[in-house]
Amino acid sequence: MPPYPKVEAFKFHIESYLCDLNEQIRLASMVNYMLDAATEHAEKRGFGYKSLKEDNRAWVLSRLLIEIMEYPKNESDLTIKTWVDEVARTFTYRNFSMHDETGKAIGYARSIWAAIDMETRRPMNLMDWRPEMAEYIGQEENCPIEHPGKITPVKAGIYDSFTVKYNDVDINKHVNSVRYIEHMIDTFGLSFFKEKHIEKFEIIYLTESTFGDILTIHREERTPEEYVVEIRKGNTAVCRCLIRWKNKKSNKIIS
Amino acid sequence: MPPYPKVEAFKFHIESYLCDLNEQIRLASMVNYMLDAATEHAEKRGFGYKSLKEDNRAWVLSRLLIEIMEYPKNESDLTIKTWVDEVARTFTYRNFSMHDETGKAIGYARSIWAAIDMETRRPMNLMDWRPEMAEYIGQEENCPIEHPGKITPVKAGIYDSFTVKYNDVDINKHVNSVRYIEHMIDTFGLSFFKEKHIEKFEIIYLTESTFGDILTIHREERTPEEYVVEIRKGNTAVCRCLIRWKNKKSNKIIS
Repeated sequence: MPPYPKVEAFKFHIESYLCDLNEQIRLASMVNYMLDAATEHAEKRGFGYKSLKEDNRAWVLSRLLIEIMEYPKNESDLTIKTWVDEVARTFTYRNFSMHDETGKAIGYARSIWAAIDMETRRPMNLMDWRPEMAEYIGQEENCPIEHPGKITPVKAGIYDSFTVKYNDVDINKHVNSVRYIEHMIDTFGLSFFKEKHIEKFEIIYLTESTFGDILTIHREERTPEEYVVEIRKGNTAVCRCLIRWKNKKSNKIIS
Repeated sequence: MPPYPKVEAFKFHIESYLCDLNEQIRLASMVNYMLDAATEHAEKRGFGYKSLKEDNRAWVLSRLLIEIMEYPKNESDLTIKTWVDEVARTFTYRNFSMHDETGKAIGYARSIWAAIDMETRRPMNLMDWRPEMAEYIGQEENCPIEHPGKITPVKAGIYDSFTVKYNDVDINKHVNSVRYIEHMIDTFGLSFFKEKHIEKFEIIYLTESTFGDILTIHREERTPEEYVVEIRKGNTAVCRCLIRWKNKKSNKIIS
């Protein structure tokens, strides 16, 4: 038996500055909390950011797929459960389930991570390096959503562009994973957020961008509910996401 | 004796996504934590966001002055103490002191707030409305920094501009106070953050801006260490800040 349970639940309080005009948590704020939970879960079990850093390695998020049925409200508590689903040669699969104050599941997520060598930026074999991770593998909780799939490239001109600035970058001077999500979601106008919510968000991170880079945003409507947004550095796709919107149950329009 | 002490300390853990390329907390992340502390302090004592909302009133941040001697590091704990310094006819003064893991003070702040009527958007007399706030007034902790002063308007053309998007706005569809701070600090290039840190940041909020507004950023160098940055909507100043930089003690340059 490993010293910690496979699944751990983390409780977060939703402060108002994490909320949007619907008084609900923003998707990007929820992802930050998911990454907090993942960090703490891994840290405690000996394969977190700090343990990797000692060996000059780092976790890099490669893919993330989230499905949200209901966005928790301002000033409520959000519980995030997380566990390691699988460890393959160079990728690790981590799942999440999100719960409201009553314990009801309000969303699920699957994520795929690589542990890279910080010198070569190449992925490394995790099981060779941390064989004890094996003890924590295995889905004991429910994660009834599909696996991350293919997102075909966007065929569209420049929708918007931005220069990578101080508040976009992380401790490695690379654009923070969640900041890309904000820039992508920010391509949508007020009417989307009044009438709909994002029920599925899937992102694939392809390469890194850094302070001062000029990035372009490309957006393509695949169906009236589904959009693909790509961020590019020159001709190279940096990341690409699929956003699926759902009309709100009640047609109450926010003034 | 009021049921709670005048001063309360709140402890926060500095997650890596709150940190910058120097592996230190970003100023904007620190302000978010200060606002968390202020919210919780006020809420417990009966004059927080929720209590005000019941009477259709809301807190609006009018001014903020922060002086930071040292930025706490990634994965360390930050303690923020906060208390009500003074209550005047339409403004309330709240102070903060920031402490590192050893308890050493690493920064101080003063803030000025108005409680507005949400219908009229006009400030109201707080002491008439919540006379029990009087019990919590009084500086028992040290706040050895100057009071917010005058920041004269910027005389400069457009430095940059942006459209207010989804992730900029709060639950009232107004741009979040901290988001303005990010946009202002984001006018500075990489060399500033490599060689210096912000030792003083002072902001005055003048009017509100909302989803879809096009805002321009104006920046003026007052001395090589002092800059004033203004965000405008057309010809109207929305907010204005003064940023004072200090060379880092060690001249260790980050690669």
